[in-house]
Amino acid sequence: MTATASPPTRNGVDTATLFATIDAVKGAPQAAAFTFRADNEWVSGTHNRSTIHGFFGVGEERAHEHTFTFDADHPAVLVGRDNGPTPVEFVLHALAACLTAGLANIAAARGITLTEVRSTVSGDIDLNGILGLNPAVRNGYQGITVKFTVRGDAPADKLRALVEQSRARSAVYDVITNGVPVAIEVDAG
Amino acid sequence: MTATASPPTRNGVDTATLFATIDAVKGAPQAAAFTFRADNEWVSGTHNRSTIHGFFGVGEERAHEHTFTFDADHPAVLVGRDNGPTPVEFVLHALAACLTAGLANIAAARGITLTEVRSTVSGDIDLNGILGLNPAVRNGYQGITVKFTVRGDAPADKLRALVEQSRARSAVYDVITNGVPVAIEVDAG
Repeated sequence: MTATASPPTRNGVDTATLFATIDAVKGAPQAAAFTFRADNEWVSGTHNRSTIHGFFGVGEERAHEHTFTFDADHPAVLVGRDNGPTPVEFVLHALAACLTAGLANIAAARGITLTEVRSTVSGDIDLNGILGLNPAVRNGYQGITVKFTVRGDAPADKLRALVEQSRARSAVYDVITNGVPVAIEVDAG
Repeated sequence: MTATASPPTRNGVDTATLFATIDAVKGAPQAAAFTFRADNEWVSGTHNRSTIHGFFGVGEERAHEHTFTFDADHPAVLVGRDNGPTPVEFVLHALAACLTAGLANIAAARGITLTEVRSTVSGDIDLNGILGLNPAVRNGYQGITVKFTVRGDAPADKLRALVEQSRARSAVYDVITNGVPVAIEVDAG
């Protein structure tokens, strides 16, 4: 009898490769130095487009399998032409995506099979800030709320613990809650 | 002879509407309270998808003209299937898009016609943080650099000043450099 082994995945996560990757980085910590990039080109008005393709990691320049392009714009009510979401909406997507990816990995590592993960991320912003009308109002979000629905084959407290551990190890959560220094260089002429 | 008036735009920005909008908010500051949202659904492994459509602003629930969906994933080297950029790359896109949209608006307001605006945003991240291998390493980017190329019908110092004013009024720059409180709620079961 020939047995066909299932691939060692749970939640679509190849846990053997995940653990092997962590072990590899443990032995060569410098492999974990990554640089990600986005190239943006102005189109017209508030409409512009980013291309995401190459990145540096594990010691060399690499690239995604595809070239990804994303348009951003303002809606008409914010004097744009609505060719894409606003930049601040992409921040919410990034946060949801990071917490959810981590959650799936952590669940797989803990032997928990997920059946559903949904979230709604909302951010409150007072545009008196960016319009320069009230110096007491910040430009960015005043607060962001993430509402998760998580279903799987573990008790509720174990499922909640997945979200907590994902939060504790989320790159985007760290960026958004703690801030990052940003340097801007300009070639003008 | 019939004259056809050009629309009062510069850089694709309808400056008359832009100024009218600012004046309207000046008279009714509460109109500037916006809430943006992204709905995310886990697909498999590190692959998940956000939908961006509705938002609240100028006193009522509104929606983009289209429903925008964005996939996020990890590349194979980070144990994903590369169905989309990583969440942290979307953060770079958001920053580039916000600074560029602001720049075009400010240039229009200052009577400067732009011919080219490009930027590359790069972020350095040490994955020893999110992998839990070194508690001294943060999860998120350690630093982000934005390199702008700006061309237009003004001297270099005036073009540089556009970038500086856009930075000073950018929602995403504020979010990324200063941080925002994030609340997470979980419905688990």
